[in-house]
Amino acid sequence: MSVALSAETDVRAAMREIGVAARAAARVVANAPSEQKTRALTAAARILREHTPDILAANARDLAEGGARGLSASFLDRLTLNEARIEAIAKAVEDIAALPDPVGRVLASFERPNGLTIERVATPLGVVGVIYESRPNVTADAGALCLKSGNAVVLRGGSDSFHSSAAIHACLVAGLGEAGLPEAAISRAPFAAREAVGEMLAGLDGALDVIVPRGGKSLVERVQREARVPVFAHLEGIVHIYVDETADLDKAVRIVVNSKMRRTGICGAAETLLIARAAVPRFARPLLDALTAAGCALRGDDEIRALRPDVAPATEEDWRTEYLDAILSVRVVAGLDEAIAHIENFGSHHTDCIVTQDKAAAERFLCEVDSAIVLHNASTQFADGGEFGFGAEIGIATGRMHARGPVGVEQLCTFKYRVRGEGQIRA
Amino acid sequence: MSVALSAETDVRAAMREIGVAARAAARVVANAPSEQKTRALTAAARILREHTPDILAANARDLAEGGARGLSASFLDRLTLNEARIEAIAKAVEDIAALPDPVGRVLASFERPNGLTIERVATPLGVVGVIYESRPNVTADAGALCLKSGNAVVLRGGSDSFHSSAAIHACLVAGLGEAGLPEAAISRAPFAAREAVGEMLAGLDGALDVIVPRGGKSLVERVQREARVPVFAHLEGIVHIYVDETADLDKAVRIVVNSKMRRTGICGAAETLLIARAAVPRFARPLLDALTAAGCALRGDDEIRALRPDVAPATEEDWRTEYLDAILSVRVVAGLDEAIAHIENFGSHHTDCIVTQDKAAAERFLCEVDSAIVLHNASTQFADGGEFGFGAEIGIATGRMHARGPVGVEQLCTFKYRVRGEGQIRA
Repeated sequence: MSVALSAETDVRAAMREIGVAARAAARVVANAPSEQKTRALTAAARILREHTPDILAANARDLAEGGARGLSASFLDRLTLNEARIEAIAKAVEDIAALPDPVGRVLASFERPNGLTIERVATPLGVVGVIYESRPNVTADAGALCLKSGNAVVLRGGSDSFHSSAAIHACLVAGLGEAGLPEAAISRAPFAAREAVGEMLAGLDGALDVIVPRGGKSLVERVQREARVPVFAHLEGIVHIYVDETADLDKAVRIVVNSKMRRTGICGAAETLLIARAAVPRFARPLLDALTAAGCALRGDDEIRALRPDVAPATEEDWRTEYLDAILSVRVVAGLDEAIAHIENFGSHHTDCIVTQDKAAAERFLCEVDSAIVLHNASTQFADGGEFGFGAEIGIATGRMHARGPVGVEQLCTFKYRVRGEGQIRA
Repeated sequence: MSVALSAETDVRAAMREIGVAARAAARVVANAPSEQKTRALTAAARILREHTPDILAANARDLAEGGARGLSASFLDRLTLNEARIEAIAKAVEDIAALPDPVGRVLASFERPNGLTIERVATPLGVVGVIYESRPNVTADAGALCLKSGNAVVLRGGSDSFHSSAAIHACLVAGLGEAGLPEAAISRAPFAAREAVGEMLAGLDGALDVIVPRGGKSLVERVQREARVPVFAHLEGIVHIYVDETADLDKAVRIVVNSKMRRTGICGAAETLLIARAAVPRFARPLLDALTAAGCALRGDDEIRALRPDVAPATEEDWRTEYLDAILSVRVVAGLDEAIAHIENFGSHHTDCIVTQDKAAAERFLCEVDSAIVLHNASTQFADGGEFGFGAEIGIATGRMHARGPVGVEQLCTFKYRVRGEGQIRA
């Protein structure tokens, strides 16, 4: 990156050139045979392994610069690559290569009375823009998922992982080259400059079809506010578990503790526990004690605090908070209706769970709770593209349009109608 | 409508109240049984017929006011209702009532190795905002389609059809009432004031999930530019037909003339004819003569004008123009590759057609042309939700996200995942 390029107008011109090249590449990869895309990804995985020393050297440079800038230890940890992490990155690319090709799937097929046959067929979205923060593995995941789904992608990673991303990106590009696919199919903004983000939000002069932000709430909010193209955004996961009086006690304890404590920093981690009033006598203590034993801080309503005076009081703000930490808010509700009303009122329509042995209650919950993922008797931490069998995900979408829940290769497709006739005209 | 309400702040407050009520109604209709929605629509159709005199009186008022404002005769014609048109509106509502319920369809279903079962199930979008111009039938079509798909809708019709829309809307609301559904499920902005549109574009304070503009290019462009919520927009249909040298001559003439001339003002009408150079000797004259005989004005490239010097010259601007009139631009291309390149370069990704007896060429065209609808040997005027068997459409979307092509009840749905377990937790 030459210093001259950091001038705003040069960044703009260069980003638009990237957009033009990505658009042209998109047409090629949209029509590339499955085998050719698989070959590119398999080669990229091999090249990632072969170039482990280069990637580690680039990563060391990012870590040194980040340390000098005073980045926190936990931030630097997320940024750090080692041989095992690079192997995991390469393996993930291979796993994506092995997925069924989502392009060309016939989603629906029907024949009209006039003899026309109509097929709805999955096709790539076009050019996907991915704006992400410091995790260098997103470079490989997003690049591989977009290529597998026949899209071109323009990647813009955080400046803190600039060199690591560049090294990983070079391996993906080499894989494309080996398979005879255009290098611009996986493009990367070569600028640490923030103007590159602005250009992407403006759509690269019409080149981008959709933007996927991967990062914290402030990044996602900025993208949603400023983007002039559709966004697959993941805002937050205010995830609920509702336990009713028919629940199996062991299951309830296991599911609640796992949903909250397995990993507290992921979007599928539970943030609020709702307990049916009729369940309080038998369930409240075992649930709360198990959470406390697992190291979870609790915030409860008055009924909970009557049982466990050591629990901090929950305020209305707690019902709206994604803690992403070992904290859980707990509320007693009259029953299913009040649980659903609480979730609709305070939730984020991401993932919610009912623990019950009452099938009718479970079905009502699964129907009426308007969230991307609704679970019965299973941990909310299953809210994950890998766990859904999608192979990998580029994110979990909290919007309602197009992509909702885990965004894997199928969700990175749109569709078209293929109509076959024998000379039919319209009366 | 009281005069005081026309003040901007009052419109804002009243529109937001409509949004709050629609949001509450959306939860009810999302979970309403099919039978109840059908009952509401069947009742609405009956009430529309019963209230024909009231609707005609309201329409007469719109026509009188429009005439006094100096609206054109063709505009007033589109605005005019009569008994036959009201019967057609009622029949369309009945047809939508008779469609299969799109809500709750299982779109995919899979079991994970850990025993979790996952279903992807169709669910309503939520609250749909529809902003349209003068055609009063849109009030009934949009209201019925949204209810059938379990959505609440906020309708904002053009001020020229204000009284007609109000009368039709009242019948829909009466149908909701008979079936015990909330009246706010089909809401209507009671304001001719333009501020109502601005409020809807801002999303009614979070109440709207999607906006569907129905109208001319300037309305759609304004909505796309200003809307803060997703838009199902129909921009324009620059529709191509490519005829190659293997085509059946009779079919080609029939398809081309029908595609252009059946109705010239609809989005599926052809705007450009591409002829393979090898097809020129046998096909060009019969095609051009048939078009001229049907009353179509032609604009051609040099090769076409060498054959038919009376044809006006086509400029580059012609390749980018949606005439919506009895005009067709005609170009000779080297073959399939150049035809596809022309369509990708100048088209609007709406609807494109190949006329050929060569199956391999047809398949390549159907795969590689990146348009919502691609046809082989059939008139482009089939680009229509009714012709696709969708029962009716709220529009044809030219975007790539979520809804593409005809937007019927299925496209007015999103989906969620229902996950059923037996106590599974994540390792």
